[in-house]
Amino acid sequence: MPQFQARVLVSLRPSVLDPAGEAARSAAQRIGVEGVSKLRIGKSVDLAIDAPDEDEARRRLEVLSDRLLANPVIEDWSLDIEPLNHSNES
Amino acid sequence: MPQFQARVLVSLRPSVLDPAGEAARSAAQRIGVEGVSKLRIGKSVDLAIDAPDEDEARRRLEVLSDRLLANPVIEDWSLDIEPLNHSNES
Repeated sequence: MPQFQARVLVSLRPSVLDPAGEAARSAAQRIGVEGVSKLRIGKSVDLAIDAPDEDEARRRLEVLSDRLLANPVIEDWSLDIEPLNHSNES
Repeated sequence: MPQFQARVLVSLRPSVLDPAGEAARSAAQRIGVEGVSKLRIGKSVDLAIDAPDEDEARRRLEVLSDRLLANPVIEDWSLDIEPLNHSNES
């Protein structure tokens, strides 16, 4: 079965405060890294998925992102997916 | 001063176990999302930075990533940076 490589980026909705991001921005200045603003911390989830085709892989990963990876009350997500080369598999 | 938009992706080194990722992979199967493997959870940090030019912005963000955003003992990071359009700023 074809395999796909995917990355789901989960970010806080713009209206949600990010205290951890604000702490990192403030720490950046403290260690001498100037000019940083609007620092927001999200999640990056890398995975492989076996599926009959890319549409089906995408459909499954939409379910996964909505129900498991992101909290839709406070987070948005985006999905990148691409076929994996299987030339060296049996 | 020019402003740049950047994203730092922080991921666990391949040799480091990811129990949270493994738990998510296992939960995926439990909610009926089939075929998921090699699920790893990392961080995605979005930020803006003011700097004289892109080289200087990149240099500062390399310091930031090495010293603050990633733990180099167990994590790798990668950096994407691009100029922000300032046409609507005073």
